[in-house]
Amino acid sequence: MKPTPKKIRTTEKAVLPKGFRAAGVAAGLKASGAADMALIVSDTAALVAATFTTNQVRAATVRLDAARLAEVGAAYGVVVNSGQANACTGAAGAADAKEEARTAAEAVGCAEEMMWVASTGRIGVRLEMDKIRSGISKLAKALSPTGGEDAARAIMTTDTRPKRHTATWKADGKTCRLTGLAKGSGMIAPNMATMLAFLMTDAAVDRRSMQKALGEAVAKSFNCISVDGDTSTNDTVMLMANGRAGNAKLKPGADGWDGFVAALEAVTAALAEDMVRDGEGAKKLVRLRVTGAKSAADAKEAVRAVGESFLVKTSWVGTSPNWGRIMDSLGYSKAKVDESRVAIAYDGVVTVKGGVATGVKQARLEKILAKNEFSIDIDLGLGRGEAYLLACDCTEEYVGINKV
Amino acid sequence: MKPTPKKIRTTEKAVLPKGFRAAGVAAGLKASGAADMALIVSDTAALVAATFTTNQVRAATVRLDAARLAEVGAAYGVVVNSGQANACTGAAGAADAKEEARTAAEAVGCAEEMMWVASTGRIGVRLEMDKIRSGISKLAKALSPTGGEDAARAIMTTDTRPKRHTATWKADGKTCRLTGLAKGSGMIAPNMATMLAFLMTDAAVDRRSMQKALGEAVAKSFNCISVDGDTSTNDTVMLMANGRAGNAKLKPGADGWDGFVAALEAVTAALAEDMVRDGEGAKKLVRLRVTGAKSAADAKEAVRAVGESFLVKTSWVGTSPNWGRIMDSLGYSKAKVDESRVAIAYDGVVTVKGGVATGVKQARLEKILAKNEFSIDIDLGLGRGEAYLLACDCTEEYVGINKV
Repeated sequence: MKPTPKKIRTTEKAVLPKGFRAAGVAAGLKASGAADMALIVSDTAALVAATFTTNQVRAATVRLDAARLAEVGAAYGVVVNSGQANACTGAAGAADAKEEARTAAEAVGCAEEMMWVASTGRIGVRLEMDKIRSGISKLAKALSPTGGEDAARAIMTTDTRPKRHTATWKADGKTCRLTGLAKGSGMIAPNMATMLAFLMTDAAVDRRSMQKALGEAVAKSFNCISVDGDTSTNDTVMLMANGRAGNAKLKPGADGWDGFVAALEAVTAALAEDMVRDGEGAKKLVRLRVTGAKSAADAKEAVRAVGESFLVKTSWVGTSPNWGRIMDSLGYSKAKVDESRVAIAYDGVVTVKGGVATGVKQARLEKILAKNEFSIDIDLGLGRGEAYLLACDCTEEYVGINKV
Repeated sequence: MKPTPKKIRTTEKAVLPKGFRAAGVAAGLKASGAADMALIVSDTAALVAATFTTNQVRAATVRLDAARLAEVGAAYGVVVNSGQANACTGAAGAADAKEEARTAAEAVGCAEEMMWVASTGRIGVRLEMDKIRSGISKLAKALSPTGGEDAARAIMTTDTRPKRHTATWKADGKTCRLTGLAKGSGMIAPNMATMLAFLMTDAAVDRRSMQKALGEAVAKSFNCISVDGDTSTNDTVMLMANGRAGNAKLKPGADGWDGFVAALEAVTAALAEDMVRDGEGAKKLVRLRVTGAKSAADAKEAVRAVGESFLVKTSWVGTSPNWGRIMDSLGYSKAKVDESRVAIAYDGVVTVKGGVATGVKQARLEKILAKNEFSIDIDLGLGRGEAYLLACDCTEEYVGINKV
């Protein structure tokens, strides 16, 4: 086991790394008139790593970006629109995505293949290309090294607040910065979420190493959250590294590599946590951990069954620790479960042991459940498999937001 | 292929078959003072068939009944309590279940092994045995050939109305009757539901044939419904046949066998439909069908992913045909999906073809979605696999009912 790199704290700000500019504007895609387009650009071409949705139904933008990653591996930037997902739009949607990217590439003066595109919003609706085109020309004019905050706001859909974090570390004596902007609060499930995240760093990083590090960071962050168990068609995490910090190229073993990994993990974890905290209608953040599963795969099945059960999630809305519903969902999960070995603790207070109640006073548990944030640790007592999930409650407001 | 037996209509009444008596009383288990215990008894020992929950966490009652089915295969009756599930109650709960059954057996004068027991309600709570005992003595006195309706009401939990259906057919010139009483409106998912169903017939039926027919009927009824995707710890379907109609023993090929199967399928289907219609907080019944899947297993995965998606179910609350969420859930299901081959129709109106919108007017779809009942047919265009699911919408009221 290699030692885990020291944890890095993030600041909740969109301070862009050297050489990056961004902008967010209202292009009229959202009926509300709120900002709905963003552009992020690096002054020099950046190396790119990315992960995409595992959904078999993939938005036109996801297919385009995945092809670009395979072909080029470097980009100048990304243009993003919210309001319309450009998913399930067929060949016409694919052409729209390409044109959105081409228009942005022309506006900033780079090769078409080096401009990515991301969309989020309603599925099955064609993009309003007139608005997109005029939005892009506004964006190109508004690009600024201080435009990160505007961009973070423009990519929001049902999000109630922007999500952005920045971390810094040293490599070669040079200060490097990694900044992430993200959106997502519904249609969120492990294996990404209905989420977009754009990560930028001014560090020079080896491309293969960067892709591997991104995959690992996503596995521990965006793939460990669930709002409603629905994996979206548009999920994209993009990481650009433009090398403007002037450090020697980072790869495992190099000075500053551990700092890069720590910054990447800290920023992705913070963004993921922001998403669950801002989960549609959610009032409570619940840190679910399953240990003692027969295997890691079993632990994942168990933690998802619990964290995505309607009945478990609605029970959290009240303050009643209805642990019977946790037992029930463990029982129907695909994980091997022997009820006589199950233990459940709320914020460390062991409530179930050997599958039955330990007799903790109801009032004590209600105090824990009344908090905005608490943990539930489940031990299956069968092996060494472990898994973690950041979950939230399912409120009447969630239904209200989505009954459209 | 053998021809499907003629369909039989059921009457929505609890007319008990010959030789059966039932009762329902308030034993004080429910704080509301509503009826909460039921007893169903046959004057002569009945042959029994049954299916139980597939949940790995099984209530004490389920374990007891399953053992009895394996050992004896005949029963005089069943005592049922609502309010407390007697699940996750360990060895003490197992002893309670046994005592509940023994007390009922003594009250009606039969061997302990021939009295079954079923519980439904909150998990993890011990039965209040004093109330159970006095409830049983009240029940024994109240037993009556017209007590079916009282029994159907006493087994309700969050159900808003009793569920009972009766069907008759001829065998050997004798009129046979099959009657079912059931409860269930939440914690309902395929592979049974949080549901109890007690089926009685006065026909004489071969035990093995009866078990097989019950399994097939359950597969087409209780295993094709979903309220919230949560399979419960207590699900039990029990079928008793006491032979009092005087017919020659039914088995495949015998006169009246097809009538028996048709009655069994009609009653179980009607009860299952009642459960979804009465789904917690549900306002709409949606008949989901997936065709064209690569395999039957794929069709099942697809239909469940759609019918259990929070986002799909909440979209039905409104009147907006947000078919993009159906595409999304198909895409993350375990079924093989090629979005360019997917077709979706609402009440026969083809809304998606080749994975994209056909351009049906929104107003026309909204009219369908505004109905209390509609169908969604999904064709995956990949093979011959088919599956069916009766689903319902997920309303704010569902959350309200369960936030405890």
